[in-house]
Amino acid sequence: MRIDGKSYRTIWLAKDGWRVEIIDQTRLPHEFETVLLATLDDSIRAIADMLVRGAPLIGVTAAYGLALAMREGNDDTALKAACAKMVAARPTAVNLRWAVDRMRADLAACAPVDRAQRAYDLAAIMADDDAEICRNIGVHGLSLIEDAAAKKNGPVNILTHCNAGWLATVDWGTATSPIYQAFDKGIDLHIWVDETRPRNQGAALTAFELGQHGVPHTIIVDNAGGHLMQRGDVDMCIVGTDRTTASGDVCNKIGTYLKALAAHDNDVPFYVTLPGSTIDWTLDDGHKIPIEERSADEVRLISGLAATGTVEQIDIAAKGSPAANPAFDVTPARLVTGLVTERGVCAASKEGLMALYPEIRS
Amino acid sequence: MRIDGKSYRTIWLAKDGWRVEIIDQTRLPHEFETVLLATLDDSIRAIADMLVRGAPLIGVTAAYGLALAMREGNDDTALKAACAKMVAARPTAVNLRWAVDRMRADLAACAPVDRAQRAYDLAAIMADDDAEICRNIGVHGLSLIEDAAAKKNGPVNILTHCNAGWLATVDWGTATSPIYQAFDKGIDLHIWVDETRPRNQGAALTAFELGQHGVPHTIIVDNAGGHLMQRGDVDMCIVGTDRTTASGDVCNKIGTYLKALAAHDNDVPFYVTLPGSTIDWTLDDGHKIPIEERSADEVRLISGLAATGTVEQIDIAAKGSPAANPAFDVTPARLVTGLVTERGVCAASKEGLMALYPEIRS
Repeated sequence: MRIDGKSYRTIWLAKDGWRVEIIDQTRLPHEFETVLLATLDDSIRAIADMLVRGAPLIGVTAAYGLALAMREGNDDTALKAACAKMVAARPTAVNLRWAVDRMRADLAACAPVDRAQRAYDLAAIMADDDAEICRNIGVHGLSLIEDAAAKKNGPVNILTHCNAGWLATVDWGTATSPIYQAFDKGIDLHIWVDETRPRNQGAALTAFELGQHGVPHTIIVDNAGGHLMQRGDVDMCIVGTDRTTASGDVCNKIGTYLKALAAHDNDVPFYVTLPGSTIDWTLDDGHKIPIEERSADEVRLISGLAATGTVEQIDIAAKGSPAANPAFDVTPARLVTGLVTERGVCAASKEGLMALYPEIRS
Repeated sequence: MRIDGKSYRTIWLAKDGWRVEIIDQTRLPHEFETVLLATLDDSIRAIADMLVRGAPLIGVTAAYGLALAMREGNDDTALKAACAKMVAARPTAVNLRWAVDRMRADLAACAPVDRAQRAYDLAAIMADDDAEICRNIGVHGLSLIEDAAAKKNGPVNILTHCNAGWLATVDWGTATSPIYQAFDKGIDLHIWVDETRPRNQGAALTAFELGQHGVPHTIIVDNAGGHLMQRGDVDMCIVGTDRTTASGDVCNKIGTYLKALAAHDNDVPFYVTLPGSTIDWTLDDGHKIPIEERSADEVRLISGLAATGTVEQIDIAAKGSPAANPAFDVTPARLVTGLVTERGVCAASKEGLMALYPEIRS
């Protein structure tokens, strides 16, 4: 997608042909800076310090990190040590472990002398695969936006929550992929961007990436979406998901459930975009998903640009008041109009998902 | 209610017997300071600069402001000028105009020499009346909490939105009045305090006043309440309202509607507290209430305590992204379990309200 008129992915091979370049997402939206990764340790820092974020991007960064490691040492001991170190960068990131396991299995089967090149090739394949999955989610979601556009004069108003944008993937994003494809096709669009407290990924990241690509949008507080739907100012909601159960329940950023309730109450279609890899086929009930409780400091402390031009952190809460911070909630399948995957759109149900992923039966 | 162990109202006569003392609410929650009002102009500044806020408190401050004015000059010209100046302090505040009209009518019928004393008396009556109305709302709401407490072991968990607390009234508050009375009676309670973006009145004011009075509470982001209700961690919601229609629709701070939807979806009782004076008997449909659109800066800019110990403002949003800021939403009567007024609890319906306020028929 575009930043300041120039096309970017979130990770790419540097001009020198061997270093790896990323966007330092901790500095967004107030500063845009890219960072060169030259070593395994650089890559681990980028993951651990959240310069890169989002499951797909973390996975690809890990893959490139192992490629850099193989330049430093390519025997079995080095490979094993590099993989162990990489997995420890963010121990709870499922996709990080998956990417490292895939790389290790493949590289272990290679002659040591070929490992560095093979790692670069594999990392590039993983990046391209992710971009292609996201592009396909967008192709299928695009038709939903086209249908809505055909039914009305004026812009199609789409509400989104959190950042399921290209910054969380290699390119396109999930919830944003249909939006970018509709915009690039010239469809009249306007996006309501939920701020997404406590970490404000909507106001910071989604607004940033939509703005840079030129997509008309407006930031709102998380409280406002229900009112906008009552007023008829939302034609559809499109959100991402961290995990979807086999029955179509959706675990996504805290507050998603409230928007789904409002959409249902106002007959606004509520779509969830996801790569098939995030479906948890072992779970039938979303309420069995353990919800991460994060630090109360995320609620109390907010970062932003001070009048001095520097990024500062302030405490907004009454002194001594405790805060709770559940990071996700579960939207039951009954509130989801459709799941938009790389293979097509289906009902949020076991039957719907099985029709798209029939190989699961076997 | 108590601050640092000492009982306060939000406005009172100073020890000297003629000046008027208020809490500077613009400094809350980070600093607690009281301010002495000695002149009409002091009172106008306190209202215009929002040192006092909340309809009842603004009205009483205006009444005392006119008492101070009558000390400066008590002839008809002075009375008329003082009233005009006072109404202009916040032109859209309905209760300000109501209080000034009431004072003017009464004082105009007085001999000029008696006007100052009469104004002090009237202002004190208005303050006591408001405190008594709020206390009675609490008496009726208390029985709802007692019923909930009788049904469970452990604390009654109550979720509230925004600040319908004693700081917005003279004493007790509306939504908080049942809470303070239950707490003072020794009922085991815990309050979930919605942060209430964009102005954070929950995290700042409600958390402050509950904390100072000793009521156990936890701040949450506005996104979290639905999840807590799904998890069974909310026994009831109690919120305030700016305006209630004759049919029981409730216009309150933006985001209230989303919590009402979640309460309904999870069989959590949703109560709205209000003085009868805020019922709009001329309106049957809440969606006819015009919703104030406030400055986008309230969404982008957040104030809080910086590490340096001073209150600073930061910009949280992507540069150049517009923001929208509807300040209220309408919760339809069908989502409201009961209206809690100074006269009792009733169904959110024309019949329910008419039974409590039969004089409206004539």
